[in-house]
Amino acid sequence: MPLPSRKPEAALNELTATEMAAAIAAGSATSESVVRACIARIDAREPQVLAWQFFDAEQAIAQARAFDRSGRRGAIGGVPFGAKDIFDTCDMPTEMGSPIYAGHRPRGDAATVALSRKAGGVLMGKTVTTEFANRHPGKTRNPFDPARTPGGSSSGSAAAVAEFMVPLALGTQTTGSTIRPASFCGVVGYRPTWGDIRCVGVKEAAGSLDTVGLLARSVGDIALYRDVLLGREPEPVPAPAAPPRVGFCRTHFWPRVEPGTQRLLEEAARRLSKAGARVADVELPATFADIEETHSRISSYEFARNFTWEIENHWELISKTLRENRLKHGLACTFQQYRAARDHAERCRALLAPVFDEHDVLLAAAAAGEAPIGLERTGDASFCLIWTTTHVPCVTLPVFTGPHGLPIGAQLIGRRNGDRSLLAAARWVHAALAP
Amino acid sequence: MPLPSRKPEAALNELTATEMAAAIAAGSATSESVVRACIARIDAREPQVLAWQFFDAEQAIAQARAFDRSGRRGAIGGVPFGAKDIFDTCDMPTEMGSPIYAGHRPRGDAATVALSRKAGGVLMGKTVTTEFANRHPGKTRNPFDPARTPGGSSSGSAAAVAEFMVPLALGTQTTGSTIRPASFCGVVGYRPTWGDIRCVGVKEAAGSLDTVGLLARSVGDIALYRDVLLGREPEPVPAPAAPPRVGFCRTHFWPRVEPGTQRLLEEAARRLSKAGARVADVELPATFADIEETHSRISSYEFARNFTWEIENHWELISKTLRENRLKHGLACTFQQYRAARDHAERCRALLAPVFDEHDVLLAAAAAGEAPIGLERTGDASFCLIWTTTHVPCVTLPVFTGPHGLPIGAQLIGRRNGDRSLLAAARWVHAALAP
Repeated sequence: MPLPSRKPEAALNELTATEMAAAIAAGSATSESVVRACIARIDAREPQVLAWQFFDAEQAIAQARAFDRSGRRGAIGGVPFGAKDIFDTCDMPTEMGSPIYAGHRPRGDAATVALSRKAGGVLMGKTVTTEFANRHPGKTRNPFDPARTPGGSSSGSAAAVAEFMVPLALGTQTTGSTIRPASFCGVVGYRPTWGDIRCVGVKEAAGSLDTVGLLARSVGDIALYRDVLLGREPEPVPAPAAPPRVGFCRTHFWPRVEPGTQRLLEEAARRLSKAGARVADVELPATFADIEETHSRISSYEFARNFTWEIENHWELISKTLRENRLKHGLACTFQQYRAARDHAERCRALLAPVFDEHDVLLAAAAAGEAPIGLERTGDASFCLIWTTTHVPCVTLPVFTGPHGLPIGAQLIGRRNGDRSLLAAARWVHAALAP
Repeated sequence: MPLPSRKPEAALNELTATEMAAAIAAGSATSESVVRACIARIDAREPQVLAWQFFDAEQAIAQARAFDRSGRRGAIGGVPFGAKDIFDTCDMPTEMGSPIYAGHRPRGDAATVALSRKAGGVLMGKTVTTEFANRHPGKTRNPFDPARTPGGSSSGSAAAVAEFMVPLALGTQTTGSTIRPASFCGVVGYRPTWGDIRCVGVKEAAGSLDTVGLLARSVGDIALYRDVLLGREPEPVPAPAAPPRVGFCRTHFWPRVEPGTQRLLEEAARRLSKAGARVADVELPATFADIEETHSRISSYEFARNFTWEIENHWELISKTLRENRLKHGLACTFQQYRAARDHAERCRALLAPVFDEHDVLLAAAAAGEAPIGLERTGDASFCLIWTTTHVPCVTLPVFTGPHGLPIGAQLIGRRNGDRSLLAAARWVHAALAP
């Protein structure tokens, strides 16, 4: 099964966001023409992929026409984007992947949706999320194989970007909810330094871990969209002055990585070294072995309190998966255990910081391997746990192909607050590892 | 103007929440009788105080009757509470102190509202907030003098508790929005360690500083309500094993404290020492002198991005105060300045931590003095800046009386994550300083 690749003369919907915005600003395309090309792609592929929870072609075209008429400019002027269905939208339902929120219409837009629109973005629709961005899956299928999961929880956002339905999509990550579906769907996924991009109007899962996540088809688009969401003028990420110092970090989750993926990562480390990077193995301190329990306690404790209204009023509408895992654990977790877990997370953050004195980025697995067969589960998120818990920025790059021809990502991790350096290194790595 | 004080045979509405819950559990009162007593007080005093944005006596009585019929128990079983009107409520409007949200009806309850109800609380209504918990005032007047501000932004919550309309109320604090109105209205105000109590369903002002805040008439009620909001079984705070080590911390804001209040604080330090506390002066490192600018940058940057939807769609409905201060500054603040401010805040947090090796609590001003005359402004919040920015827990105790007979609070600050120790020390200090 070949990966879909961009044609030499790309259709408008296959351009990157950066290219779309440039074409629209130059007058060589209109927002309406770009949006119509994306709609044509959605019409063709949505029946198989099911990426969208809400999609109304007329509404998208109306927004695009309004942009074209306005004479406005903007960093993503006229460019369509998708938003995971846990982001509030004032003009589209926001159903959270849960029957509890069927037909729910928020009063306003999430801050990130509003910032996207402020920069000229056209909201194409709402992408499928797992229930409350947890594990219970939505309807979306992997674009490369409908029998396989797209990953979660940002399932529809990853699939829609992979399918050239939109060049940009908003997701979130509390464990591996952006990096994992990006790896499974063959797109670039980015989780920013915790706290940088405001989560107002996004349904909170576990706020001390949650971030917005971005999905796109190029590192340049990620950098562009990040600037939009920070509410600042975009500034392209420069090429790094020198090849990055790469720490190859297998982590204690390495035995869970499939042998084929282990080989791909080790080969990638060698290729980066040949391309001029200084590559060295990195071993994390022993206390990181406890981080899975720490992450589980923090996320479960917060989740179980955050969803008190839903638990108390709509218990029967919550999936068995959510009730018997996250909520059961969270309701049983004491405040003392939660505080101890937060303390441990803080110690890990402090211990990780000096690692980046020796290495510009870490290279690690994004997922065990290709998207697994089956739609009931969204795959193993372990490979994101350490980075999510330590609040550092991460990118996954679609550079590997697995035994069944499906994509696998390589994850790069940067220093906390070092997002631009991470993205610069990611551009270099992406070029060096491009097939 | 005398402070209202509890009568020897207190009416039901004058009981503490702890006493109300005990009376209801023992069958010596019903939730309905308690709620009716509070309603009678609201009927008598609301025309002068204007603490409530939404209040429907029938709805409150219906909740109380449902509780009485249910046979349920709960830590605050049958006890009425108020919620600042930036807390989502599924059965009452949530208007945020802004015409943009006139008539807004959220889908669900904020986590803290739902946790209160889970523990048996009866939501009495929504208390007046300043616009979006910022500076533009609501209609509420100081209970002691209608010509004076109640303080903000949790104006109605502080006034309603002071007036014996409810024993407990939810507020928030991003600068001094709980401590300041508590000081001005003569009640106990508590801001928890940042991050402990979930803010889901509370309109975010600046998430990296925001906390929920609690208002009550006793430290014991604060401890009780805190446990409810952490979703755990209440455990009364014990008396401290020994008199606390008190650091008297004038801070560089001392010149802004009125001379009379300076004398009250210095006298309080002497009285605590006489009562057995080890009292010593504490001077903070020089870098704390920059914390006002740091707090302003963090809060303004986040605020201006959080409210993008309101700014882009309803600019003309935003007050001039908010537009020309917080939003103007926030839109002008660059991401680099914001990141630098966050770094500075983190340095201050690290520098403050060892201060608590020598002192169990710090004693500081809660406000410059009595509530100032005038309803256009909510008073100087400087005295909370350091503690808000450093994420440590704080309590204000209504122990001083100013030159016009109005209350002034004494602020106690605890170690980050040391909330129970702080509350234990606060009980001791409250008893030691009681008039």
